[in-house]
Amino acid sequence: MMRTRPLKVALLGCGVVGSEVARIVTTHADDLTARIGAPVELAGVAVRRPSKVREGIDPALVTTDATALVKRGDIDVVVEVIGGIEPARTLITTAFEHGASVVSANKALIAQDGAALHATAVQHGRDLYYEAAVAGAIPLIRPLRESLAGDKVNRVLGIVNGTTNFILDKMDTTGAGYQEALDEATALGYAEADPTADVEGFDAAAKAAILAGIAFHTRVRLDDVYREGMTEVTASDFASAKRMGCTIKLLAICERAADGGSVTARVHPAMIPLSHPLASVREAYNAVFVEAEAAGQLMFYGPGAGGAPTASAVLGDLVAVCRNKLGESTGPGDSAYTQLPVSSMGEVVTRYHISLDVADKPGVLAQVATVFAEHGVSIDTVRQTVKDGEASLVVVTHRAPDAALSGTVEALRNLDTVRGVASIMRVEGE
Amino acid sequence: MMRTRPLKVALLGCGVVGSEVARIVTTHADDLTARIGAPVELAGVAVRRPSKVREGIDPALVTTDATALVKRGDIDVVVEVIGGIEPARTLITTAFEHGASVVSANKALIAQDGAALHATAVQHGRDLYYEAAVAGAIPLIRPLRESLAGDKVNRVLGIVNGTTNFILDKMDTTGAGYQEALDEATALGYAEADPTADVEGFDAAAKAAILAGIAFHTRVRLDDVYREGMTEVTASDFASAKRMGCTIKLLAICERAADGGSVTARVHPAMIPLSHPLASVREAYNAVFVEAEAAGQLMFYGPGAGGAPTASAVLGDLVAVCRNKLGESTGPGDSAYTQLPVSSMGEVVTRYHISLDVADKPGVLAQVATVFAEHGVSIDTVRQTVKDGEASLVVVTHRAPDAALSGTVEALRNLDTVRGVASIMRVEGE
Repeated sequence: MMRTRPLKVALLGCGVVGSEVARIVTTHADDLTARIGAPVELAGVAVRRPSKVREGIDPALVTTDATALVKRGDIDVVVEVIGGIEPARTLITTAFEHGASVVSANKALIAQDGAALHATAVQHGRDLYYEAAVAGAIPLIRPLRESLAGDKVNRVLGIVNGTTNFILDKMDTTGAGYQEALDEATALGYAEADPTADVEGFDAAAKAAILAGIAFHTRVRLDDVYREGMTEVTASDFASAKRMGCTIKLLAICERAADGGSVTARVHPAMIPLSHPLASVREAYNAVFVEAEAAGQLMFYGPGAGGAPTASAVLGDLVAVCRNKLGESTGPGDSAYTQLPVSSMGEVVTRYHISLDVADKPGVLAQVATVFAEHGVSIDTVRQTVKDGEASLVVVTHRAPDAALSGTVEALRNLDTVRGVASIMRVEGE
Repeated sequence: MMRTRPLKVALLGCGVVGSEVARIVTTHADDLTARIGAPVELAGVAVRRPSKVREGIDPALVTTDATALVKRGDIDVVVEVIGGIEPARTLITTAFEHGASVVSANKALIAQDGAALHATAVQHGRDLYYEAAVAGAIPLIRPLRESLAGDKVNRVLGIVNGTTNFILDKMDTTGAGYQEALDEATALGYAEADPTADVEGFDAAAKAAILAGIAFHTRVRLDDVYREGMTEVTASDFASAKRMGCTIKLLAICERAADGGSVTARVHPAMIPLSHPLASVREAYNAVFVEAEAAGQLMFYGPGAGGAPTASAVLGDLVAVCRNKLGESTGPGDSAYTQLPVSSMGEVVTRYHISLDVADKPGVLAQVATVFAEHGVSIDTVRQTVKDGEASLVVVTHRAPDAALSGTVEALRNLDTVRGVASIMRVEGE
């Protein structure tokens, strides 16, 4: 049932990912034809700088007019690898209106406007796929949306930002401080000149919003995701983590409440036990741990970024969307029927590891313990040390709502005998 | 676009997996309806022993006449969880002929007759899905077939049998011998009364055939898979592995030859470095490592067996097949267009770890080294030990064709100075 009229693909953006997509479409044409059931033809490439030489791409295909390209009317699939909100959003919407399906790698746009874009896709009978938007080459959107479609996902716990994992891994293995590790990441090309989106957790938060929405079949907006960056993690935090048999990772955590009536999504650094599979995720790799009612614990691991890995995910979507087009069907799209409320960070149940600088005199522990008790927070372990006249207390709590834990910390700051709160870190993955 | 006429599901087999499938279809009916776009109704359950009480299943649905059930004509999807070749094969074929699509968890049948069953499905315009046939709950078939559809998979390296991984993990962590570890696995229900299919590698070989076929888009028959069980792995092998910074796993390995012109598939115990992600896969868990040209190294981890995990995979397929039915389409089926030859084990390039008992006299190492050289096998390391008048040589080779390596071992056996070959183990995962 091979047809010979090719499916026409328009590529928006030809940077690190786009050029790899173009390369694979060209060099692996025969395989793609066999797997899709029809040839795929690169029909146009929209770029900002047309004068740049792009190896392997026919200059006649290159245009600066992306709008005209998506409006041509003969395009079957638009691949959007520009990134950012505009003009990507308008171009994707225009593509749907003019008969094309869309494959996107744009996490920021999908996290912010996924619902509206899905609605437009459905209205025009088109597909919107974006496996590459979360965790690069790792198959994650498709397993969550399709493989686990008959299961109930209760928790997603993941390392979804390679830059920050590289930095934290360096701090862990070499004892370096944050700035030193960031400098190395920048020098090696793992961190951008302005690393804010990565180190402040914005990138991971967009991915958490997308994952939570798909995992729980509900709507999770970017604003619903609690976010803390990892710029304040210190070498001393790693030393504390080691004493607990833990390491520190920047985690995206999406959870269904125990009563099933609400969900939460958050991004923050956390201590996790060395025995947890995520603890051994090194360098810029990503990994996502999924807990489902019937499946149990699953983990997906691989390169979370880079031109070729991201292109692999784009190409997988491209093949699926092309097959759907040939079969005159569409794939499974948005699923947000549960409409579960998203609870605030205060309601999240977690554990704190708190380091306090305290006065070296009797009765301090009793005072501190009283503050915990008044806030309904139960203590797991306490370690007291006195060194060079400096006394410190390290308290690890049992599980409690974050609001009670943060309230406890505020009250501790007001104690005369507490000179300062040296660090606070959540403990996850147990 | 919700329709109210339910999709009718016939369940063949109601054991550990089937009863979980029935339970989820019943208790999660609302979720399945929302995700599929139509309700799903359990229309019949074929069993061998109708008198057994099955909690949550309407006795009126239970029948011993599986053939009549699949011939009813109003069944949309048949879920086959009987296992074995017959009557499963005939029932699936009959189901296609009578208008049903099929979801199966039957690795033996798919490995042996997948091509013919796919052909029958296509002939009748139906789907054949079997995510549950390999590695239980771990999404693997779908990621290989769909997520990596635009990539070129070069290698699949996996722990795909939970029973043997449990036994090897026990031997590794406790120093137990094979029999002792097997006894514990049997007592805990991880091994069957007759463990042959697991410990001799038949189960893993079936999965390797399925994985290789999908990964390389070619036909790999069960007979094409080289198979060695793990019953001869000893505590002494684990001690040798530890000295090399390795552990021992029963691996299913599917590889594309370096020149791309052929593939291989094999199952045997092998030493792998402790730094390899598969080395830390504990107990009865499964994990599969996939290397693809663009994606790089991916790993998929989770429970490889058990009623609920296997049911999760079956349900994911059930949702997909039901959606296809509603959309009057079929999913991506068999893909064997490359028709690559499957090379024999002799052509596989691997490394050997060889322990020899030798005469304690000068010149032995020179003799042994000459044999390796004569077979074109290059030596990586040699360790000589003399203890209580017993001399031994441990040789680890560089990579060479398996035929050259096994030829070397045969020639070593014929040396007067070699009293015996204590053990041979391949080294993988580097």
